[in-house]
Amino acid sequence: MQTFFRYNWTVREQWYQWCEDVMYDELIRERTGGVGSILQTLFHIIDVEWSWIRILQGKPDFQEDFENYKTLDKLIELDLKFRPEVEEFVEAWNESMEKRPCYDPQPDGNVAIDAWGEVMRHVIAHQIHHMGQLSVWAREVGKKPISANVIGKGLIKLETKVEDNG
Amino acid sequence: MQTFFRYNWTVREQWYQWCEDVMYDELIRERTGGVGSILQTLFHIIDVEWSWIRILQGKPDFQEDFENYKTLDKLIELDLKFRPEVEEFVEAWNESMEKRPCYDPQPDGNVAIDAWGEVMRHVIAHQIHHMGQLSVWAREVGKKPISANVIGKGLIKLETKVEDNG
Repeated sequence: MQTFFRYNWTVREQWYQWCEDVMYDELIRERTGGVGSILQTLFHIIDVEWSWIRILQGKPDFQEDFENYKTLDKLIELDLKFRPEVEEFVEAWNESMEKRPCYDPQPDGNVAIDAWGEVMRHVIAHQIHHMGQLSVWAREVGKKPISANVIGKGLIKLETKVEDNG
Repeated sequence: MQTFFRYNWTVREQWYQWCEDVMYDELIRERTGGVGSILQTLFHIIDVEWSWIRILQGKPDFQEDFENYKTLDKLIELDLKFRPEVEEFVEAWNESMEKRPCYDPQPDGNVAIDAWGEVMRHVIAHQIHHMGQLSVWAREVGKKPISANVIGKGLIKLETKVEDNG
């Protein structure tokens, strides 16, 4: 689980850097699919990640309003504010938490019950999914998207096997 | 690991169903970003998943040519052909395999070394990323995309706690 979160944070920071070379109009332009613009997608990723981690902890969630975070700097600031709490929760994650129930009230009044392991994977997949959308929009802007590769990022240290040729 | 693969297979089958209601011209239309068309994306996902699982097993990989799989039926057939081998490998996956080295020859003559755990997550993220692209193209077609939600699919059985009120 930790590996995937580290992957997501690495790629997210690469997208922040990517945004630095793109005109603000392009970052904020309304696009087809997803939640709309490039910046709003990044905002949505940050917000959803934090919100779920709050819900799992039984802490009050609050809905941030994108209107207050419409620049790259403000988004990064928000991410930095939320990250320590998310990181602490992710680092403490272990197998025994996989099947715990998470109660998620629905707009229709019902309460969905998700396993914590489902929620954590939902958060992971949520970012990757939305960054797939960013990769299409990046080509619309005429700029190469950030690679979605998990390999090549040194996320897992290899086994160092001591050869015994004696 | 198994949970994410089951998620991917479920969502992939939902996309196959989604395609059934879409004109062939739209499925094959060249689009901005990714590997091109909707069908070619599905082909790419099937191919890449199988290829990596073959590489991890030290078995010869072969490059399928999309030209021979340009219909939904042929894609599904290919997926059905590859799936049992992938499934067997995924089901047998365990923690002890995480840090094994995977040697991946590069076009430039170098050999990259990835941990097996990185490769498996790469395969998982690869599909989710490309399906994020499909979700944008779906809106271009004017059709609601398949949900990327991990929650709500019953992927993990909840703990059933026996309450002792005695």
